[in-house]
Amino acid sequence: MVSSTDNQYTKKAFGWAARDSTGHLSPFDFSRRKTEEKDVTFKVLYCGICHSDIHMIKNEWGFSTYPLVPGHGIVGVVTEVGPRVQKFKVGDKIGVGFMVASCRSCDNCANNLENYCPRWILTSGGKCHDGTPAYGGYSNIMVADEHFVIRVPENPPLEVAAPLLCAGITIYSPLKYFGLDKPSMHVRVVVGLGGLGHVAVKFAKAMGLKVTVISTSPNKREEALTRLGADSFLVSHDQSEMQAAMGKLDGIVDTVSAAHPLVPLIRLLKTDGKLVIVGAPEKALELPVFPLLMGRKVVAGSKIGGMKETQEMIDFAANKHKLSMVKHTLLDKSIDCNAAVVLLIEKKYLAK
Amino acid sequence: MVSSTDNQYTKKAFGWAARDSTGHLSPFDFSRRKTEEKDVTFKVLYCGICHSDIHMIKNEWGFSTYPLVPGHGIVGVVTEVGPRVQKFKVGDKIGVGFMVASCRSCDNCANNLENYCPRWILTSGGKCHDGTPAYGGYSNIMVADEHFVIRVPENPPLEVAAPLLCAGITIYSPLKYFGLDKPSMHVRVVVGLGGLGHVAVKFAKAMGLKVTVISTSPNKREEALTRLGADSFLVSHDQSEMQAAMGKLDGIVDTVSAAHPLVPLIRLLKTDGKLVIVGAPEKALELPVFPLLMGRKVVAGSKIGGMKETQEMIDFAANKHKLSMVKHTLLDKSIDCNAAVVLLIEKKYLAK
Repeated sequence: MVSSTDNQYTKKAFGWAARDSTGHLSPFDFSRRKTEEKDVTFKVLYCGICHSDIHMIKNEWGFSTYPLVPGHGIVGVVTEVGPRVQKFKVGDKIGVGFMVASCRSCDNCANNLENYCPRWILTSGGKCHDGTPAYGGYSNIMVADEHFVIRVPENPPLEVAAPLLCAGITIYSPLKYFGLDKPSMHVRVVVGLGGLGHVAVKFAKAMGLKVTVISTSPNKREEALTRLGADSFLVSHDQSEMQAAMGKLDGIVDTVSAAHPLVPLIRLLKTDGKLVIVGAPEKALELPVFPLLMGRKVVAGSKIGGMKETQEMIDFAANKHKLSMVKHTLLDKSIDCNAAVVLLIEKKYLAK
Repeated sequence: MVSSTDNQYTKKAFGWAARDSTGHLSPFDFSRRKTEEKDVTFKVLYCGICHSDIHMIKNEWGFSTYPLVPGHGIVGVVTEVGPRVQKFKVGDKIGVGFMVASCRSCDNCANNLENYCPRWILTSGGKCHDGTPAYGGYSNIMVADEHFVIRVPENPPLEVAAPLLCAGITIYSPLKYFGLDKPSMHVRVVVGLGGLGHVAVKFAKAMGLKVTVISTSPNKREEALTRLGADSFLVSHDQSEMQAAMGKLDGIVDTVSAAHPLVPLIRLLKTDGKLVIVGAPEKALELPVFPLLMGRKVVAGSKIGGMKETQEMIDFAANKHKLSMVKHTLLDKSIDCNAAVVLLIEKKYLAK
């Protein structure tokens, strides 16, 4: 075990940390490791704020340790590279997403699924393999192994790219893996409509799919249809709307991060339809078996994506219209992640 | 609406019926429809007893109507065919499984998935499209549209074939559809070990798979390993056995028909592993989302199979060693479906 005061942790850094589960962040001086052989050091330019940051800050998943520097949708510009770095040079625009390490030797890692490696390390809130805490992107600088660094193309703009490194891959990966990316199949994708949800709508539309948004809130109808370009909108507690839509959807990407009933969603699926959960409610959901049996339906989970696919996602995004809508926000007030935008940290918090 | 006393219901039949939800069956004289243009009439030789018969007899799924003649794994010999029947002639050995009708025009029907047609009719306990009750195979004769009749090959013996028309297809179909039938992938299949479970072990072994049986009962270990030929055995409440097996299984076919925890099963799956539920617990199960997210895992349901696949299943079974073990039983005592055999009705009950 190596503590952050050991020799290799010599790089002074500044960030914003939660010290406990109250939800409050405060300035935090700490050290990052020096640039090792395969490391890329970069100045952070933008960092997204994700609902999972809030979960972590408030210890809602039960495994947070403090001080905790959140942030895992990070873009910046390279300031230093280790001698064995092959992919990047100083000045490159790059990004880091949800993870900064994995074992690199298990079957998952061998199959470009580092995100499912049992020894993966979260960018924020995990513990590095040397035992030191992993501090995230609400910070002025970052150091990461180049394997976990993504090249960010000219487009999209850096601030749009930042949240895609979490929200974008969280949506892109299951659409691909579960075969929900085929416009010829008239696949429809349905989602909640928070930060992650609006990225889901944008990606699904960019893939040419028909998109239905399901929300608890009728107020989001116009936003979904007009601003995001969804094809239709359902209010989840409107029985007649839901009844009329029964059996019509090929797939649902469920971005809701709070406990919610699955049956009304499963009923919307066609035979062989897939409900893919990408939000992470802390409480167990109720799963009646009959609605699954009645149409060979699938409930699945999906968690971000591997590094190869994350690069593929951002390259896909490069050729499309803005796939995330962002809003810069302050850290020293309460953060609301339920709007159909991704929050970005105000730049002033990323400098010292 | 046509009642069973109308003209076409002229064929005298005898069976065993539940009159209420007490679980008791008693002799029942009724009529079946005359042999219509596409109909096959047959003398019932064997009929399996399935846990879903018990669910229906006792109205545990809440939609039983009485009198109810159970039975949906039925084989017999053709005694009469309608003028437009093409596939069968008098004397043929044939079988009827879980369903006797569907709409024949929806997408599911067009795709040989009559089992997922919203207008499918259960062989036992459903209502036919003309409004009359569907009486099942605990009976001396049956009449069915030839589309829902299966040709039973010389092998397996008829009494072995009977339960396969329900249990066999219930297992065969998800193994195929969810890609759990590839010995080269070292797919393992794990099951409970009742009537359906033992058929699952036999089919999985016949497909060349490695099979692990999971059971609440340590007493079933020898039966699983020695009598059924499973490769390994886990006691579901033995923490150390379950811990050692974590992340090792490609798929699980879950045949348990009572409420049970899913998480210990999900934990046994590899990344991308699939837990396919084919039992039908009446109560909702608890589904924590994290274990799904952590390995892109799938929980799915599957319900018997279409008619084309049911024929394929019985033809597959024809070339294999006995794929079900049966035990003849009396109807006028309490029926226990938890042994690793499929119960068959004693022949004397099928004659008048």
